[in-house]
Amino acid sequence: MLQTDSPQITPILEAARTAARTLATTPTGLKNQALHGIAGTLRASVTEIVAANALDLAVGAAGGLSTGMLDRLSLDPARINALADAVLEISLLTDPVGEVVRGSSLPNGVRISQVRVPFGVVGVIYEARPNVTVDIAAIALKSGNAVVLRGGSAAENTNRVLVGLLQNAIEQAGLPVASVQTIDHFGRPGATELMQARGYVDVLIPRGSAGLIQAVVTQSTVPVIETGAGVVHIFLDETADFQWAVDIVHNSKVQRPSVCNALETLLVHRAAAGRLLPAVLAKLAESGVVLHGDERVREIYPAAVPATEEDWATEYMGLELAVAVVDSLDEAIAHIRRYSTGHTESIITNDIVNADRFLGEVDSAAVMVNASTRFTDGGEFGFGAEVGISTQKLHARGPMGLPELTSTKWIVRGSGQVRG
Amino acid sequence: MLQTDSPQITPILEAARTAARTLATTPTGLKNQALHGIAGTLRASVTEIVAANALDLAVGAAGGLSTGMLDRLSLDPARINALADAVLEISLLTDPVGEVVRGSSLPNGVRISQVRVPFGVVGVIYEARPNVTVDIAAIALKSGNAVVLRGGSAAENTNRVLVGLLQNAIEQAGLPVASVQTIDHFGRPGATELMQARGYVDVLIPRGSAGLIQAVVTQSTVPVIETGAGVVHIFLDETADFQWAVDIVHNSKVQRPSVCNALETLLVHRAAAGRLLPAVLAKLAESGVVLHGDERVREIYPAAVPATEEDWATEYMGLELAVAVVDSLDEAIAHIRRYSTGHTESIITNDIVNADRFLGEVDSAAVMVNASTRFTDGGEFGFGAEVGISTQKLHARGPMGLPELTSTKWIVRGSGQVRG
Repeated sequence: MLQTDSPQITPILEAARTAARTLATTPTGLKNQALHGIAGTLRASVTEIVAANALDLAVGAAGGLSTGMLDRLSLDPARINALADAVLEISLLTDPVGEVVRGSSLPNGVRISQVRVPFGVVGVIYEARPNVTVDIAAIALKSGNAVVLRGGSAAENTNRVLVGLLQNAIEQAGLPVASVQTIDHFGRPGATELMQARGYVDVLIPRGSAGLIQAVVTQSTVPVIETGAGVVHIFLDETADFQWAVDIVHNSKVQRPSVCNALETLLVHRAAAGRLLPAVLAKLAESGVVLHGDERVREIYPAAVPATEEDWATEYMGLELAVAVVDSLDEAIAHIRRYSTGHTESIITNDIVNADRFLGEVDSAAVMVNASTRFTDGGEFGFGAEVGISTQKLHARGPMGLPELTSTKWIVRGSGQVRG
Repeated sequence: MLQTDSPQITPILEAARTAARTLATTPTGLKNQALHGIAGTLRASVTEIVAANALDLAVGAAGGLSTGMLDRLSLDPARINALADAVLEISLLTDPVGEVVRGSSLPNGVRISQVRVPFGVVGVIYEARPNVTVDIAAIALKSGNAVVLRGGSAAENTNRVLVGLLQNAIEQAGLPVASVQTIDHFGRPGATELMQARGYVDVLIPRGSAGLIQAVVTQSTVPVIETGAGVVHIFLDETADFQWAVDIVHNSKVQRPSVCNALETLLVHRAAAGRLLPAVLAKLAESGVVLHGDERVREIYPAAVPATEEDWATEYMGLELAVAVVDSLDEAIAHIRRYSTGHTESIITNDIVNADRFLGEVDSAAVMVNASTRFTDGGEFGFGAEVGISTQKLHARGPMGLPELTSTKWIVRGSGQVRG
């Protein structure tokens, strides 16, 4: 039953539900054909997209958007072609819809099977990242979902052009044009209505800043999958291999510091601090990383600036790192328990008991031994496409691929059975 | 990171988190030992439980609780022994914690595996059903979760005694006493705080009336699994077998009319109405079912009272049934789409194409062919224990057993790998 007080966006939501019914039973081949159409349209429309994007970039620059924000907002021909490539990759992935998850024959002969089905209507609220428009639309389409997008005012011109192109390609493939829709023209009130659209929207996914995610989680009455921040830790245990410590810490922090799986806090066992920290921190400093150390770190590496309480809870998303010496594995786990956002933590160790304890006791979406935190990623995990990385425990945890955009239903086949 | 404004219940939530950490790594054998202890304590404490329950029943009767509510509130020696039996059955179920859901070796040699872990802290809000206290506590314990219960004022005396017995048995098994806690003594403000306890409570499960569930869903900022109402349909298709139609409709409506998988609306193809309805409805009437029919039903079966628009959306939970004649499968599906709560729908047919269309196009937790709707049940599905039946699409859909009370985490094992 439908329950909503959203007068403005109701027609869009109703169109989305109707489209979702068609998409739920659309064969994979037809969905792939639409994806090929989308990729072709994107490549053929580079000039149009770049022109619309230039408008958004000009407004953003005049409005004082940060360099990082402007970079995420920007689409050039190379990026547009990469988006088209990603859409083609999604067309190659296995369709999750129809997968039989489990099943059995009951003692009375009734056969039950749990089968993957699309959610139906997926809402996405994001900020100033027009690439998300194409990525999410393609992933939703492949998984049989209609999608309602709220991409924010900063990317409004770009998103309008992109949604128009997506809709044309979808319509040409014979699928409902309302498979992909935007509510950007309704502004913030539209976003609020989307969060309250119980019965219309099956799941809402926020992607963006911690503030955006927090707002969606607290204001929504529809189910939300939270893609959260990453205050990511590495613990260098007493027995950590020297070269692994140097390489993994550097890779985790420096390879792409602006993303959620990048390292933010390094913990070192006191018995290994003297052996490891000078080389580990020197290599980071060479790459321009500003180090915030506690007292014991600064004894070994005086160039570090003093760490404050705030540093332990900070997701820098840039070339900064908090570093602390701890007395034991227990103290490392306690520190992580207190400050981690539950995204990714890694231990570098040669001690099998400590490795197992770390894996068992650290409660994060991904827990690692002797590997870079940068591996928590749908592409690296072999999912092909990534909706985001969930830091909640309900439904999806860690990198989300196509199956995470589906629900299931139980198919029950009898021959007249009744319950005794 | 913890985020909450719940000053009153904070100590309880913190104790629950601490207990959850222990439970997460507690071996199955020890959890089963605690379950055996609980079963033994329940059987040994029948007099004490019945006495506390008598207080609640007296207050309830004086306060004008309905007969149905008083029945659900009531615990007698037979029911208490049945609860103890159920706890022992849960001890026999496979522990979901540690199950490897999937895994692979990445091209770089990194090995990843997705492993079931407990949620952590499970909140449950329910009303006047003390059996839920024991059921949920046992299921939560077996799946490695700490549980915080809000059982409502009507069952307050019974629940206080039950929680005390549960805690004693848990403590005697060497597990944390805070594995099971109640916040009943904080009244409604405590319930509100529980719904807002982000960072403390990993999932909240409401069980009870539609009003209770609606309140929890709209007020909660923690993730919720909705166990919703069932406006359950059967469609008698043109080719429906006569005896199956009579038996399945009767069983679905009459076998236990007060539960969510009981039939509430019967739809009949017009070409089968004359053949089937007289016998189907007569058998229902014999069992005391009040029939609400549309005009075409009343032409065939004049004893039916006229159905109103409201009837189609009503979950009677008693011996009443709405009945309509439809022109086609499409009209039946459209009716279900409009009025169903997405719980269970069944088609009685011998037409394979219609059966497949019904299974594919009806968007409910359980869709059936030629079987009683009463089969949507954790016990019938072989899950052993049931937390409830989810009518949402996120995380769990349909009957929820032990695995539905778990999340997963990714275990990543490397040997120095970094991302290129």
